[in-house]
Amino acid sequence: MFESAEIGHRIDKKTFEAEEPVLRQALLEAQYLLKQQGRFAVIVLINGVEGAGKGETVKLLNEWMDPRLIQVNTFDQQTDEELARPPAWRYWRQLPPKGRMGVFFGNWYSQMLQGRVHGHIKDAVLDQAIDGAKNLERMLCDEGALIFKFWFHLSKAQMKARLKSLRKDPLHSWRISPLDWQQSKTYDKFVRYGERVLRRTSRDYAPWYVVEGVDPAYRSLTVGRILLEGLQAALAAQAPPSGQAHAAPLTASLDNRGLLDSLDMRQALAKDVYEAQLASEQARLSRLLRDKAFRRHSLLAVFEGNDAAGKGGAIRRVAAALDPRQYRIVPIAAPTEEERAQPYLWRFWRHMPARGHFTVFDRSWYGRVLVERVEGYCSPGDWLRAYGEINDFEEQLVEAGVVLVKFWLAIDEQTQLARFQEREQIPFKRFKITEEDWRNREKWPEYRDAVGDMVDRTSTRVAPWTLVEANDKRFARVKVLRTLNDALAAAFGDD
Amino acid sequence: MFESAEIGHRIDKKTFEAEEPVLRQALLEAQYLLKQQGRFAVIVLINGVEGAGKGETVKLLNEWMDPRLIQVNTFDQQTDEELARPPAWRYWRQLPPKGRMGVFFGNWYSQMLQGRVHGHIKDAVLDQAIDGAKNLERMLCDEGALIFKFWFHLSKAQMKARLKSLRKDPLHSWRISPLDWQQSKTYDKFVRYGERVLRRTSRDYAPWYVVEGVDPAYRSLTVGRILLEGLQAALAAQAPPSGQAHAAPLTASLDNRGLLDSLDMRQALAKDVYEAQLASEQARLSRLLRDKAFRRHSLLAVFEGNDAAGKGGAIRRVAAALDPRQYRIVPIAAPTEEERAQPYLWRFWRHMPARGHFTVFDRSWYGRVLVERVEGYCSPGDWLRAYGEINDFEEQLVEAGVVLVKFWLAIDEQTQLARFQEREQIPFKRFKITEEDWRNREKWPEYRDAVGDMVDRTSTRVAPWTLVEANDKRFARVKVLRTLNDALAAAFGDD
Repeated sequence: MFESAEIGHRIDKKTFEAEEPVLRQALLEAQYLLKQQGRFAVIVLINGVEGAGKGETVKLLNEWMDPRLIQVNTFDQQTDEELARPPAWRYWRQLPPKGRMGVFFGNWYSQMLQGRVHGHIKDAVLDQAIDGAKNLERMLCDEGALIFKFWFHLSKAQMKARLKSLRKDPLHSWRISPLDWQQSKTYDKFVRYGERVLRRTSRDYAPWYVVEGVDPAYRSLTVGRILLEGLQAALAAQAPPSGQAHAAPLTASLDNRGLLDSLDMRQALAKDVYEAQLASEQARLSRLLRDKAFRRHSLLAVFEGNDAAGKGGAIRRVAAALDPRQYRIVPIAAPTEEERAQPYLWRFWRHMPARGHFTVFDRSWYGRVLVERVEGYCSPGDWLRAYGEINDFEEQLVEAGVVLVKFWLAIDEQTQLARFQEREQIPFKRFKITEEDWRNREKWPEYRDAVGDMVDRTSTRVAPWTLVEANDKRFARVKVLRTLNDALAAAFGDD
Repeated sequence: MFESAEIGHRIDKKTFEAEEPVLRQALLEAQYLLKQQGRFAVIVLINGVEGAGKGETVKLLNEWMDPRLIQVNTFDQQTDEELARPPAWRYWRQLPPKGRMGVFFGNWYSQMLQGRVHGHIKDAVLDQAIDGAKNLERMLCDEGALIFKFWFHLSKAQMKARLKSLRKDPLHSWRISPLDWQQSKTYDKFVRYGERVLRRTSRDYAPWYVVEGVDPAYRSLTVGRILLEGLQAALAAQAPPSGQAHAAPLTASLDNRGLLDSLDMRQALAKDVYEAQLASEQARLSRLLRDKAFRRHSLLAVFEGNDAAGKGGAIRRVAAALDPRQYRIVPIAAPTEEERAQPYLWRFWRHMPARGHFTVFDRSWYGRVLVERVEGYCSPGDWLRAYGEINDFEEQLVEAGVVLVKFWLAIDEQTQLARFQEREQIPFKRFKITEEDWRNREKWPEYRDAVGDMVDRTSTRVAPWTLVEANDKRFARVKVLRTLNDALAAAFGDD
């Protein structure tokens, strides 16, 4: 994989000087067009051997292009805010919006390679990280991002020579960190694992480009040309740069019965039983969130359900158990303009709780496969691939210690009708009912199918759905609290 | 100030039970109206004596109202991301958007009071903090925010009794932190300094409400009623809840000459001199940003100037000196929807560099007194008060170790015309010229007045403007770099 990048590629000065101004101007043009179109983001990953010109090349790109439209991110030490959240959070928070270019130094590949080279992780964990990277990049591409992955390469002899000459040059010696020197000792391992990573993560939608780093003219022109060609192709394309998902529609179940039909909707609690159980589960939740074990976890509860199923009331009973400083409720409505300029899951990542904290999502990322599917706000390709993206996303959370609990509050059509009518009659509830609610109600069968598919495809062992029979509000509230408590207790028990 | 909150206020159970449901419903209504109008944010500050029911009251408010529309923030330990930035950054990042309510526990008042009570700061510094709080709140109110400040009070004897009874109650003993116990020893100091703070920061636009904390029914109803009345009044008002600024217009200078007219626009550099000086200043900047002293500072450069004055080119020459991982360029365009839901300065606070980092603002908060003034995007009251707000803002930055450098790149009308025409003729520069640029050009005199007022009112010893004669691009670029370097060197020398 690296052999052809060790043969001493060079470009003579004359060729470079002839080509550079043309390339530069074309890159600038592409960059302004990128901004003007605002259709997709560009992500440039910079990896490879120390001393192979990573920093110099990025510096040069910033000189060639308009640096105001490029955001260069480094990911050295994690801040404590980053350490308290799932590992990918730090990358999500730095993603460039559509129309911009983000350069990622020290990205997910450097993290996994450093970990493996220094023996902090074994091959199996490396392969899991590789898989995670593939999923992330596939998703970013499907969301329209254009990804360039550059591996700057030097042979061992070339690297040693380069570090030596850098050391002698007083203007550049500061560029060599202790880490760089270390790499001259771990070169063989680094390149061996690098090869494994590149082999497995070079995909049509996000291929690696291996660039020999010895000759500055060669490496600069190579990187510049690759960027330019990729940009121009994507800018000229009518569709987003990534391929559309060619997805077959889901098949309706033959007997037209789903999981929701098998719920016993008559379940109910008498008032006194309810009050006793509610108080006891609330006290339990309050204790669990004060448990020392919770410092290693966070709690994330997703509330979805039919309109008027009682999400708000259930959330209030959960909140009532707790100190308001411990939880945050995130109501999900239409995305803002900044959120629309990012991949779909971005607006949920930004609200990720830190360890020891609890976030309630009142509606969630499942909007993609519910309202967006039914109302046609996204293409079938988009919502069909969302199931897999969501499963990947949730697995990341759970692996990082997030206790994830997902509720579907189900009521039947008659109950909904009665509640809608009640809301229209009681003055202070009138805010809770809109024309849209009545329109949604007409699409009951479509929503039922969407919910069935959602549960089938995203109720996993890692992150199961809890279907809550919510015709009786009391029964639903107690079930919600008890489920949260059981999930926390199980997580603490597993520690 | 606190005497009337130590007399044992009580409300009997019957009164409470009669009033609570009415109040609750009215608060909910007000809350939904707040959201629907989306005109202003509500900020609730919670301070006072430990054990006086701060936490319980906020918990109760969250039960009475819709917790999905309330965001409760605590400010205990600063995270490392917060420690690396000016102190107010942590509050700015948690401000509620318009239509929402934010409850601030452990806000700026607790910080200054803790500091004074424990002797970390003296009276003079306390008074500076008080002044800062007044400025911040005045500004928030002028931006439309509705601020409630509650001081929960107990006499010394009441507090001791309360902490004792809490300790005996196993369900509540977890609520008493070591800090609470400490306060029983520092009560006298705490109340003495609290009185000083309240006296000086109770203003018509953001008064303090002292609430006696002994009787839960009394304190809950009191807080609830105050909130309700304030909310209802603000929701009913036509204008934003705060008073409009009654500002006299600025007077034009009698001889129609300003600072800009006194610049020597003929200054220029020959190519060889330019190249030598540019290289030397770039090397100096690179050295200064790698200086250990820079770890205690950050660098913030503001670029303003006439259209086509060469801001972009100057910024690129600055960037070219540096490793792209060290700086970030923030181009300021029209605010996004999330930014419009916040006070004006919010969108600049969010890009505040951490220590050891460098942020370039390509256009800045000065848009308020330039384009927004000239184009009428904000009212005269808004831009007239902006001068003072900006001076306060910049003083905060500088006091926190930010090296702040502000450039106005000035060209004359003929030079601008020539550059506009050049841009129209050169293909890859065509992105840089729009119809709007030509329209702005017609308002040359208005912009000249605005720039003159801006420099007069915001060129302070703390944060002076550097006027850059930019008819000659070479001269301008070298002057920009040299000014940055001199500012850094001066800051390092002062340490």
